Amino acid sequence: MLHFDSDYMEGAHPDVLERLIKTNFIQTPGYGTDIYCDMAKEKIKSVCGLPDADVFFLVGGTQTNATVIDSLLPPYAGVVAADTGHIAVHESGAVEASGHKVITIPNKSGKIEPESLKALLVSYHSDEAKDHMVYPGMVYISHPTERGTLYTANELKRLKEICTEYDIPLFLDGARLGYALAADGTDVTLPYIARHTDVFYIGGTKVGALFGEAVVIPKKGRIKHFVTMIKQHGGLLAKGRLLGIQFDALFTEDLYYKISRHAVEIAARLEEGFRAKGYTMMYGAPANQKFVLLENAKMAELREHATFEIWEKYGKEHTVVRFVTSWATKAEDAEKLIELL
Amino acid sequence: MLHFDSDYMEGAHPDVLERLIKTNFIQTPGYGTDIYCDMAKEKIKSVCGLPDADVFFLVGGTQTNATVIDSLLPPYAGVVAADTGHIAVHESGAVEASGHKVITIPNKSGKIEPESLKALLVSYHSDEAKDHMVYPGMVYISHPTERGTLYTANELKRLKEICTEYDIPLFLDGARLGYALAADGTDVTLPYIARHTDVFYIGGTKVGALFGEAVVIPKKGRIKHFVTMIKQHGGLLAKGRLLGIQFDALFTEDLYYKISRHAVEIAARLEEGFRAKGYTMMYGAPANQKFVLLENAKMAELREHATFEIWEKYGKEHTVVRFVTSWATKAEDAEKLIELL
Amino acid sequence: MLHFDSDYMEGAHPDVLERLIKTNFIQTPGYGTDIYCDMAKEKIKSVCGLPDADVFFLVGGTQTNATVIDSLLPPYAGVVAADTGHIAVHESGAVEASGHKVITIPNKSGKIEPESLKALLVSYHSDEAKDHMVYPGMVYISHPTERGTLYTANELKRLKEICTEYDIPLFLDGARLGYALAADGTDVTLPYIARHTDVFYIGGTKVGALFGEAVVIPKKGRIKHFVTMIKQHGGLLAKGRLLGIQFDALFTEDLYYKISRHAVEIAARLEEGFRAKGYTMMYGAPANQKFVLLENAKMAELREHATFEIWEKYGKEHTVVRFVTSWATKAEDAEKLIELL
Amino acid sequence: MLHFDSDYMEGAHPDVLERLIKTNFIQTPGYGTDIYCDMAKEKIKSVCGLPDADVFFLVGGTQTNATVIDSLLPPYAGVVAADTGHIAVHESGAVEASGHKVITIPNKSGKIEPESLKALLVSYHSDEAKDHMVYPGMVYISHPTERGTLYTANELKRLKEICTEYDIPLFLDGARLGYALAADGTDVTLPYIARHTDVFYIGGTKVGALFGEAVVIPKKGRIKHFVTMIKQHGGLLAKGRLLGIQFDALFTEDLYYKISRHAVEIAARLEEGFRAKGYTMMYGAPANQKFVLLENAKMAELREHATFEIWEKYGKEHTVVRFVTSWATKAEDAEKLIELL
Repeated sequence: MLHFDSDYMEGAHPDVLERLIKTNFIQTPGYGTDIYCDMAKEKIKSVCGLPDADVFFLVGGTQTNATVIDSLLPPYAGVVAADTGHIAVHESGAVEASGHKVITIPNKSGKIEPESLKALLVSYHSDEAKDHMVYPGMVYISHPTERGTLYTANELKRLKEICTEYDIPLFLDGARLGYALAADGTDVTLPYIARHTDVFYIGGTKVGALFGEAVVIPKKGRIKHFVTMIKQHGGLLAKGRLLGIQFDALFTEDLYYKISRHAVEIAARLEEGFRAKGYTMMYGAPANQKFVLLENAKMAELREHATFEIWEKYGKEHTVVRFVTSWATKAEDAEKLIELL
Repeated sequence: MLHFDSDYMEGAHPDVLERLIKTNFIQTPGYGTDIYCDMAKEKIKSVCGLPDADVFFLVGGTQTNATVIDSLLPPYAGVVAADTGHIAVHESGAVEASGHKVITIPNKSGKIEPESLKALLVSYHSDEAKDHMVYPGMVYISHPTERGTLYTANELKRLKEICTEYDIPLFLDGARLGYALAADGTDVTLPYIARHTDVFYIGGTKVGALFGEAVVIPKKGRIKHFVTMIKQHGGLLAKGRLLGIQFDALFTEDLYYKISRHAVEIAARLEEGFRAKGYTMMYGAPANQKFVLLENAKMAELREHATFEIWEKYGKEHTVVRFVTSWATKAEDAEKLIELL
Repeated sequence: MLHFDSDYMEGAHPDVLERLIKTNFIQTPGYGTDIYCDMAKEKIKSVCGLPDADVFFLVGGTQTNATVIDSLLPPYAGVVAADTGHIAVHESGAVEASGHKVITIPNKSGKIEPESLKALLVSYHSDEAKDHMVYPGMVYISHPTERGTLYTANELKRLKEICTEYDIPLFLDGARLGYALAADGTDVTLPYIARHTDVFYIGGTKVGALFGEAVVIPKKGRIKHFVTMIKQHGGLLAKGRLLGIQFDALFTEDLYYKISRHAVEIAARLEEGFRAKGYTMMYGAPANQKFVLLENAKMAELREHATFEIWEKYGKEHTVVRFVTSWATKAEDAEKLIELL
Repeated sequence: MLHFDSDYMEGAHPDVLERLIKTNFIQTPGYGTDIYCDMAKEKIKSVCGLPDADVFFLVGGTQTNATVIDSLLPPYAGVVAADTGHIAVHESGAVEASGHKVITIPNKSGKIEPESLKALLVSYHSDEAKDHMVYPGMVYISHPTERGTLYTANELKRLKEICTEYDIPLFLDGARLGYALAADGTDVTLPYIARHTDVFYIGGTKVGALFGEAVVIPKKGRIKHFVTMIKQHGGLLAKGRLLGIQFDALFTEDLYYKISRHAVEIAARLEEGFRAKGYTMMYGAPANQKFVLLENAKMAELREHATFEIWEKYGKEHTVVRFVTSWATKAEDAEKLIELL
C-alpha cells in the first residue's frame, strides 16, 4: 500500500531524531526556559531577518491557532477567515470555545482575496447595526492554504495594507510553511512574511519534526503574557526543550528548506505524471499537496493500492482527492503511484 | 550543579526512546488511529483490570485536566478541588477559560478530606440561595497530591461513595501516578483506582516518556465525542502514534512501575539522609517528592550547588523547599546532595 | 415623522401598564418566586395545552437565545441556524461567547428548509473527518423569521422529525411569536409549536410588554438547573414579578392574540397600499413586518418623513427596506405612510 | 407578615412609575439611543462631577458585573475580589462563564483591606511560577459590601493607589450605592468615587427603579465597543428608554439620595430598637442592611411574623440574620418588627 494521505505519517527527520537522542540525558529546566529553545529562537529570528522578534514554541497547529487568536482578539471581536480555513472547518470549534466567532469570507482557491476582505470591512463599518454584530478584529490566512495554493507577495502586501488601514492584525498559519517557501515560482520569503504579518508560525509537525510549531511575533512585546496564554490553552510543554532541540536541528544548515524542497519536487513529479495520463489537476496547488479530479470508479480502484484523502464531491460521477508528499516521501513511491493511474 | 527541581528534566527513558527510533519510518495514519495506540490501549486496559474501558492519549497535564473537566461538567457546574490543587493554582486559569469555576476546599496535607467534601456538598444543597451559586458538579483530586501525599484506599473509597451519593464524577489527576503506585506502604493500586474513579489519567511526561498522558475512562462511553473535545482543546496530536509508541513501551515488562520504583527508592534515601542530619520533613510525602524545612541562610547556600523548588515561606526564618527524583535520577547525585546538607 | 422602524418604540400596552401600577406596592419575594409568575405560568401552560411544562421568564431575546442554547448544547456541539438567523448576525457573538459555534445553512426566505437541514446532518455524519468538526447539536429557528416569513405546520413537523431522527433538540425563537400566530393563513398554533419543538419562547418585548420573554419547555425537567443558567447569563431579574405581572396581563382575555392581530391587520393594509402603488413586496412576509423594494432616490425622499430600517442593497439602484407595525401602531399612521409613497 | 428580606420587594418609586406612565406612548428608537437616556446620562455625569464620562445603562447587577469584568480583563487575567464578594459567591459563576477566574482575598467585614490587596499583588509578581498562574488583572469591590459595610475615603484612595501602581483597574459595584451615600458618617461621595475608580455603577434596581444599573466610566473611551459587549452579554434592553426614563427620574431633584436616606434612617431606627432590646449587631453595617445575632429558637419564632434572610450560622445555638430596608419600607413596619423582638 502506498501512503499519500498526509505529511505526518512518519516520525521525525533523521537529523532531528539524532539531536533528540544526543541530548536525551542532558538536564534542563522545563517549559521552554532551556538553552536549546534559546538557540532555536536565535536561528529563527536570524532566518526571518528579525533580530528583535518574540519566538515561542507550541506543540500543534490547532492549539497554536486557538492560542494566538484568543491572545489577539478583544472580547467583542471575531477572526476573519476563508470559509475553507482550517479554523473554520476542521478545528472542532476551538476558536469559538475561547469565545470568538469565525467570520467567514467565500474563498478563492482557498485564499482570501484582498478585495473581499476590504468589502467585508467596509460593510461592517458602514452598517447601522454594527454595534449588534461581531467586530472583525483580526484576519487569519494559511500559507499554503487548505487547497494547496499560495499567496503572492502582492496579495500578502495588499492584505496587510488593508489590515493596517483598519488597525487589525494579520495572522498567518504556516503549518506547512516550509512547502510554501520551497515551491516553484513563489515570490514570498520568510523575511517577506515577517514584514507583512503581525504573527505567523513555522510549522514543524508536518515538516520534519515529531511535533512543534514556532510562533513568530515580529514586533517584540506585541502579545503580552503569551506564556500564560500558552499554558492556559494547554500548549506549554513540560519538556519544552524538545521543541527547541527540534527547531534548532531544522534551522541548522538549511535543513527546513532542503527537506521541504524534496517534498515539493516529488509533488511536482506526481503532477507531471497525472497530467501525462490525462487527469485534471484542481485549484492550482504548487507545493506539496496535489488535488486531482477522479472518476468515482477509478477512485475506488485506486483506494485498494494507495491511501489519500477524499476532498470533495464533484458532480455525481467525480471526486476531488488529495495526494500529499513530505520530507519523507520516497521518489519510488511517487513512480509507483503514477503507474497505478 | 545537582538538579532536583522536577521530574521532567531529561528526555525519555532509553527503552521509550529506542521504540521511537525503531518505528520512526513506519507510516501510520494520524490522530491516534494507528496500531501503536491500539496496542498501548490494550496494555493499559489490561493492567487496570478494565477490559471494556475507553483510553485516550493527550500530550500534557494541564491540557488533560482542562479537557476532561470541560467534558464532564454541565455549563452550570464547577469542579471541586483542594485549594492546593494544580488546577486551582498552577494552570493559568485553564478551567475557568472553558467557563467553569474551581470550587476550593482547604486541603489537608494536599488532600481533600472526605468529610470536608461531604460538608461542602451538604452546605450547597441546603443553601436557600443555591440556584445563585455554582453547582459542585465533579471532584478533582491528584494522586500523588501537589504536596507529595497519597490517598489511602479507604479515603479514595469514601470520596467515591460521596460522589456517588451526589451523582457527580470523581476525576483523579495522575500526572505522577507511577510514583504513587510504587510508594512504600500504599494500598492503592491501578485496578483499585479504576474501580473508584470515573476518569483518571496515567502520567507519562513525568514518568519516562518525552510527553503524554493516558486518560482512562473505566465505563466505556461515559464521555461522548471525547476526540472532538481533545481536538477542541488543542490536545489531539497529529502524529498520535508517538503517544501510543511511548505508552506501549512504558507498559511493556512492567517498565512504568520499575522506573517509578527507582525514583521512590532514591527519594527515600534522600529523606533518610535529611533526617539523619536533623532536618524536618514536611507533609509526610512518601513518593518521589520530598519537602524539607530549611533555614533561609542554609537554603541560599544550598542553591549554589543544587537546584530545587521553593515551595512556601514558613515563618520569617524558614522556607519549605521541594526535592524531586525521577526515573532518571542517579543514586550518586542523591548522595552528593545529602553530603551538601 | 412616522415611525415604522420596529415593534419596540413605545412602552407597554395599557392593560399591561395598568397591572404594573396596581401591583406596585405589593411586596413579593424576588427572582421569579412570586405568585404573579406562578399565575402567568399557569396561563401560558394552559394556552399551550401543556399542563406539565416548565415555563421561565427572561428579560430579552438575545439573552434568552444565549441562555437556552448554552443550556442545551454539550461542549463539543454547535447550533444550526439559517445564515440570516438573529443569532448568526445580530447578537454580537453571544452564542460564541458561551463557547459554541453557530453553524449556518443558506436560508430560503429566512427559513431553514427541512431538506437543507437533513443534508447538513447527513454530510456531517458521513464525513471521515467529523471528529475534527463541530457537532451539529441543536437547531435554532425563528418564527416569524428575520425576513418576516412563517413556517408552515408541515415544515415545522418535518424539521422536528429530522431533529428526532438525529436526537437533537429544536428551539424556536418566538420574539415576535404573537404576530406569527395572528397572521392570515398560518396553520401553526401555540399548541402545535408546543408539540413540535423542544424549547420555544413567547416574546413579550415586541408584543405589548415593557420587556420579557417566556421560555416554554414542553417536557418538564428537560433542562436542568435552568435558573442557575439564567442567573449565570445575567437574565434573572431581581424583581422577577415584573415579568409575571406582564405575562399574566398579556394572557388574560386573549390580549396577546388581540394586540398581535391588530398589528397584522395594519401591516396587511400597508402591503395593500404599497401594491396598489406598484411597489414590489419582498420575501412574502405575512405578519407584522413588510419588506418593500424601493428605488434609492425614493428611499431617500421617504426618509425625510418616515423612519424604517434599511434591510439590504438590491442591485445598484434599489434597496429593500422594512416597515414594522405593532400593537401600538395607529391605523391613521399607516394611511399617512401609504400617501407618502 | 412583615417583610425585610431585601430591597427589591416592591415595584418602583411613585415618581419613577409616574414618569414611565407619562412617556408610555412616546415613540423612540431602541437600544438606548433615545433622548431619555441622553438626559439621564447628563444628569448622572453632572452629579458625579464628570462632564466627559461615558455612561451606559444595563438591566441588572450580575449582568453588569459580568459585562464590565469581561470588558476590562485581558484573557490571561482574573479579577480580585473579597471571598464574600457577590461575584465570588452569588452570581452562578457568571465571571468564570466568560473565561475569567475570581481570585479571592479573605474579607475583613466584607471589605478588601488595602494591605491584603498589596500583599496578593506582591506575592504574584514575585512568584517564580507566575507565568503559570492567573494574572490579577483588576479589582472588584462592592460599596456597600455584602456585609453592609462601607469603605472609607482613605481606604478607597489607598486601593486606587495600589491599582495604579500595578496598572490595573478598580471597579466598584454600586448595586446599593444610594444607601452607602446616604449613610451616617460616610466620607465617600459620588464625585469621590468617580475620582478613585476606573468603572463603577449606580444601582437602580434596589434604589427606587423597577430595574436598571447605570455604569459610569470616568475616563471616556476607557472601554471600547462597550455597547457590543452589553449586547453580547444579553444586557442591551430593546426598549432602552425605560432605563433612561427611570434614571432621569431618580436623578431629578435629588430623588435618589432622598429615598436612600429614608431607608437608612429606618434601618438606623431598627438598629436602635435591636440594641435597646439587648441584641448583638454584627459587622458594623451603617447603611440599609442590618445584621443581628439571634438565638436559633428566637429566629424560628420571629420567622412566623417576619421574613428576613439567614446570613450564616454562628456556633451551634445562634444565627446571623439580615434585615433590609428600602425606599419603600414603612416606618410603622419597623416599629412592629422591634416590638416582635
